[in-house]
Amino acid sequence: MNRIITIGREFGSGGRELGRRLAEALSFEFYDKEIIAQIARRTPFTEQYLREIEDRVPHILFPISVGKSFWNMSDHTFWQTQSVFHEQSALLKELAEKSDCVIVGRCADYVLHRWSPYRIFVYADTDSKIKRCKDRAAARQTLSSDQIRQNIVKIDKTRSKYYSFYTEQEWGKKENYDLCVNTSGKEIKKYAEMIAGLL
Amino acid sequence: MNRIITIGREFGSGGRELGRRLAEALSFEFYDKEIIAQIARRTPFTEQYLREIEDRVPHILFPISVGKSFWNMSDHTFWQTQSVFHEQSALLKELAEKSDCVIVGRCADYVLHRWSPYRIFVYADTDSKIKRCKDRAAARQTLSSDQIRQNIVKIDKTRSKYYSFYTEQEWGKKENYDLCVNTSGKEIKKYAEMIAGLL
Repeated sequence: MNRIITIGREFGSGGRELGRRLAEALSFEFYDKEIIAQIARRTPFTEQYLREIEDRVPHILFPISVGKSFWNMSDHTFWQTQSVFHEQSALLKELAEKSDCVIVGRCADYVLHRWSPYRIFVYADTDSKIKRCKDRAAARQTLSSDQIRQNIVKIDKTRSKYYSFYTEQEWGKKENYDLCVNTSGKEIKKYAEMIAGLL
Repeated sequence: MNRIITIGREFGSGGRELGRRLAEALSFEFYDKEIIAQIARRTPFTEQYLREIEDRVPHILFPISVGKSFWNMSDHTFWQTQSVFHEQSALLKELAEKSDCVIVGRCADYVLHRWSPYRIFVYADTDSKIKRCKDRAAARQTLSSDQIRQNIVKIDKTRSKYYSFYTEQEWGKKENYDLCVNTSGKEIKKYAEMIAGLL
């Protein structure tokens, strides 16, 4: 069975970078945004629409089991979001069957449970996350620290709701992961080397 | 400034073993139960009494700031516990001044804040903790799995209350640590090597 590493991450914590570096160090495949493109190829939806659908997830307030009974059945977006999630889960399983890989986000730790993935959660304090967002955007950054802070809160809320909706587990709760890494003031590269050494 | 590693740990998670191996790998001093003996030497209390006092901490229900106003001033045990904590904190600071070290428990992450310690929290699922307790005790173990489970819950409750009483922070909350390690079904030795490589 292939070795799978899944990365859950707070926005701005450097989780994507950690995943990418880990995949490089271990010569594993790396999947993050590539997944949206692949789903676009196998559904009637455009990449842009798929991203929009993802953005709508925070409006879903119930876990999936409750949602099934109470959700307004005529809401097309809801059913499209559901079908995208199912397509995405099928894709994740195909990727896991194909080769060793690192997958960022997309409830992969839950969806790929059967592969016993090594589950990492990456987090940081708010100041570190704001700094990382600023460094990443460099000269192109036009947002103030306060605006970045608001973005971080909003995106993490979306991720948390998306995760708990589909998995009925709490996003970022340490018991759901093998390793939780606080990147505040730390070098992602060093952590990637460390974890690669372990695996 | 010396490099300090602090280990918070759930009972039976292998935190002490991780700390010891880490100290060996890095040639750092290692402090855990040794601390009780040192405090006994510098206070009027015996080692056995110091252990008993520690066991009484769970009866304190308020954080220290509230306790100060509401606590029954005539309760000798309370004041003895307090004075032991202060003695212990002074000792931790002396040890941190002396050399690089790994310290297990005793709110060291909080007490040694000034040294910016690398703060690790070690945890595991209940079955793994029961198994570890059984393996450790081997032939001497006379407790059933259920009795061990009850012990684990009781001791972790004590640790949690002790920690939150003195630090006003939540024990085991990932935001208070740099790295949270789930040892369920994992080899402690490998984690020690990994973290030693990082530091």
